[in-house]
Amino acid sequence: MSLFKTLTRTSFRPISRCYSRSVTTKRPHFPCVEVHAVRESQLRQMAVNPIPSSTSSTDSAESGPEPPYARPNPKSYHVYHDPAPLQLTYSSQLPSFDVAYETWGKLSPKKDNAILLHTGLSASSHAASTALNSAPGWWEKFIGPGKALDTNQFFIICTNVIGGCYGSTGPSSIDPTSGTHYATNFPILSIFDMVRAQFRLLDHLEIDKLYASVGSSMGGMQSLAAGWLHPERVGKVVSISGTARSSPSAVAMRYAQRSVLMADPNWNYGFYYDGLPPHTGMKLARQIATITYRSGPEWDLRFGRQMRSVLEQPPDKPRTPALCPDFLIETYLDHQGEQFCLKYDANSLIYISKAMDLFDLTASSLSANHLTSPSDSSSASTHSLSPSSTPHRTSHSKSHPPPVNPAPHLTDLAEGMQPLAKIPTLVLGVQSDILFTVEQQREMVDALRLAGNEQVSYYELGGVWGHDTFLLDVLNVGGAIRGFLS
Amino acid sequence: MSLFKTLTRTSFRPISRCYSRSVTTKRPHFPCVEVHAVRESQLRQMAVNPIPSSTSSTDSAESGPEPPYARPNPKSYHVYHDPAPLQLTYSSQLPSFDVAYETWGKLSPKKDNAILLHTGLSASSHAASTALNSAPGWWEKFIGPGKALDTNQFFIICTNVIGGCYGSTGPSSIDPTSGTHYATNFPILSIFDMVRAQFRLLDHLEIDKLYASVGSSMGGMQSLAAGWLHPERVGKVVSISGTARSSPSAVAMRYAQRSVLMADPNWNYGFYYDGLPPHTGMKLARQIATITYRSGPEWDLRFGRQMRSVLEQPPDKPRTPALCPDFLIETYLDHQGEQFCLKYDANSLIYISKAMDLFDLTASSLSANHLTSPSDSSSASTHSLSPSSTPHRTSHSKSHPPPVNPAPHLTDLAEGMQPLAKIPTLVLGVQSDILFTVEQQREMVDALRLAGNEQVSYYELGGVWGHDTFLLDVLNVGGAIRGFLS
Repeated sequence: MSLFKTLTRTSFRPISRCYSRSVTTKRPHFPCVEVHAVRESQLRQMAVNPIPSSTSSTDSAESGPEPPYARPNPKSYHVYHDPAPLQLTYSSQLPSFDVAYETWGKLSPKKDNAILLHTGLSASSHAASTALNSAPGWWEKFIGPGKALDTNQFFIICTNVIGGCYGSTGPSSIDPTSGTHYATNFPILSIFDMVRAQFRLLDHLEIDKLYASVGSSMGGMQSLAAGWLHPERVGKVVSISGTARSSPSAVAMRYAQRSVLMADPNWNYGFYYDGLPPHTGMKLARQIATITYRSGPEWDLRFGRQMRSVLEQPPDKPRTPALCPDFLIETYLDHQGEQFCLKYDANSLIYISKAMDLFDLTASSLSANHLTSPSDSSSASTHSLSPSSTPHRTSHSKSHPPPVNPAPHLTDLAEGMQPLAKIPTLVLGVQSDILFTVEQQREMVDALRLAGNEQVSYYELGGVWGHDTFLLDVLNVGGAIRGFLS
Repeated sequence: MSLFKTLTRTSFRPISRCYSRSVTTKRPHFPCVEVHAVRESQLRQMAVNPIPSSTSSTDSAESGPEPPYARPNPKSYHVYHDPAPLQLTYSSQLPSFDVAYETWGKLSPKKDNAILLHTGLSASSHAASTALNSAPGWWEKFIGPGKALDTNQFFIICTNVIGGCYGSTGPSSIDPTSGTHYATNFPILSIFDMVRAQFRLLDHLEIDKLYASVGSSMGGMQSLAAGWLHPERVGKVVSISGTARSSPSAVAMRYAQRSVLMADPNWNYGFYYDGLPPHTGMKLARQIATITYRSGPEWDLRFGRQMRSVLEQPPDKPRTPALCPDFLIETYLDHQGEQFCLKYDANSLIYISKAMDLFDLTASSLSANHLTSPSDSSSASTHSLSPSSTPHRTSHSKSHPPPVNPAPHLTDLAEGMQPLAKIPTLVLGVQSDILFTVEQQREMVDALRLAGNEQVSYYELGGVWGHDTFLLDVLNVGGAIRGFLS
């Protein structure tokens, strides 16, 4: 059994930051740095004495604010294996592929009540607890009887995306043509590729048309891509904190994460599956990601400038700061990185974050990448999108007309989003989100309306939770979805 | 000569990202990662065959958007050596210290026209060209006859801060008690310590009272600290894109930088001066920093979603993306990291960014750290700052009264800033700044007004340049300073 497999099947014991270390030279301690070497040593130890995988079939919920991700365990989810090739946007194809998936609720006899739920970057198919896996899922409070995705009414399907590491084919999978891990010989993926694989699963399940395509964050991109690729097979589209084209600042923040990960010597150009994984790079990448998932206002309220271990200090002595974490915000980031660094495959993070960067529904980008939608030929001519023609369109709600005199990039985006013009669409964004900003949400809404979509619902939420609002705000996010789907 | 000295005195030849490499296994190329190993090999080469230091006495201006930092060269600036100890906030003391400084304009016979200019994190004393160093400085367009800091009228002094690496005592300096580099045995610094060292220089120059204390970014913190420590010696205070207490989100962003730097094996717990510096960690840290210095709106305008080397592609073939930089925003961040990674000392970055995190002018923080201002005993009782008493104060401008019913943290800050109550103060912030947000500027202004300061000028700038506006917007930033100082 390779070390990689051993690691992903075992619980990693948290490392105490207070261990003693024999010091031979007069050098200060840096427990926040030494933790990497200690973990590496523990990982080597585990490679010699692996913990039996049966002891960790399910994961207990994390104490942190983010949802627990299911560990890969083929008994806890379904796997659809498709022996035929999957056509890809940027490369030729995957020779065959697996899609891990879970379902909630019952498929109606007419098979007309299916909702495809799309995940964010690092989530598994385990959106909520099931009979196979009782651990809480990443959207536990949004799925169930009477909840936002009402299992009394709908049949919910959630997959692990192609490129991921929780049961679907990704860089950590074995390449059937070589017999070894794909690693970075895995092809570059697009959001469209992920959705194509999902529709092959729908074909297998004989679901011809989705009641709705629903997704948050990267899932919002997939949700739009589903409607774009198969307008006739998607009844409604929901995009929560998503975007129709990644902004340069979001690309920058993901690039910083990939850079620190790829600079970890353990990454070894992606070929680490028979050695030690880049746990340090993953921890650093997650710290950066966490900054983009939350907001300054939340941290003002939650941590302020509080320092850790103030209680350990004698009251009459000023607290002596250190170069390792002092402030609670620092220990929070450190903790988030620690929790994540062995739970997710580094190459999956790199490939999927790249797919997010590449997502762009402008007509010029779609055309440059030879992407076509079945509705492209049948849709109204995109020439009707010239600014002068837009005032003649009638919006479903007269209070939300398409923008007058749209900027060229908006016209380009509206042309690209033309296949979505007839699909009722819910767009929801959060004002404190620095990763998928409200400007991105408004752009998406304007483009849809400009494309002639008269059934666009748009909500902008306040609050301090930033991008992670979609995981936390059951009342407002859940309410908007429930209302839109009913 | 140690390798560190060799490196900081030599020009580093940029590494081409297009070099060919013999590949023995079927593995994809990652020039963005391989560049680190190539640089390491070049650095080892340079250690064997150092370039004579005389060839690099001055630096040509960078082509990038950030100012060139002067290379350490004792002939291009003055050094004040103080043989007496410097008292520190968190540790005992530095046994002796150097302060590198440069000046512009002429000190008046009464010595009443001096302006102390404070720098941002990584800047040298070389704010503008001088007779000793003709290279453009980091604030070249703001200093000179008729400019924002008018050398016809004022005598400008700029120092390299204590903790820096451009001539002032810092972690790369030799510890006189051990005869080796301080490295991470250097004591934790505060912004107040930096200012105390500057005032020892002012004592040496026999300047009893500053006409003004002026600073941007971290320099804004120092500018406030100067007025706080020596209210009787500072005529006016200017804080551009500074803060009166670092926010948790700014701490988070600097913590992410320190983390990637300290995870570089070359950092070696800070003891790298006789070996290879942590160039990879520095590059990664600078990439993260660059994200915080600019703004999404600027990148939308400047880069959008443009990709590099589009011209290299055959027009009929879709561009195949890679895991290394594709988008112009990625190559921009990569370039910023490359430019910086050998120009600044890693330990200086760690110590000074930590000092920024620790800066906090609330009364509770000052008191916990036993910090006292000479004016503390003579000032009006801080008890007068209770919310009920504030409406009775008269603001200099009736349109800008202190806030009614201030939050507890604001009262705490106002109490701490009491020593600044009688110093005319200019506060200028930028709406697109994500590092020193306008909320931070407004908080500072509210606290000053609540403390009874009736001469607070406050400007909030629009524009897309983010935190770096203070380096770029000569018209608006320069104009506000010129008006305030005249």
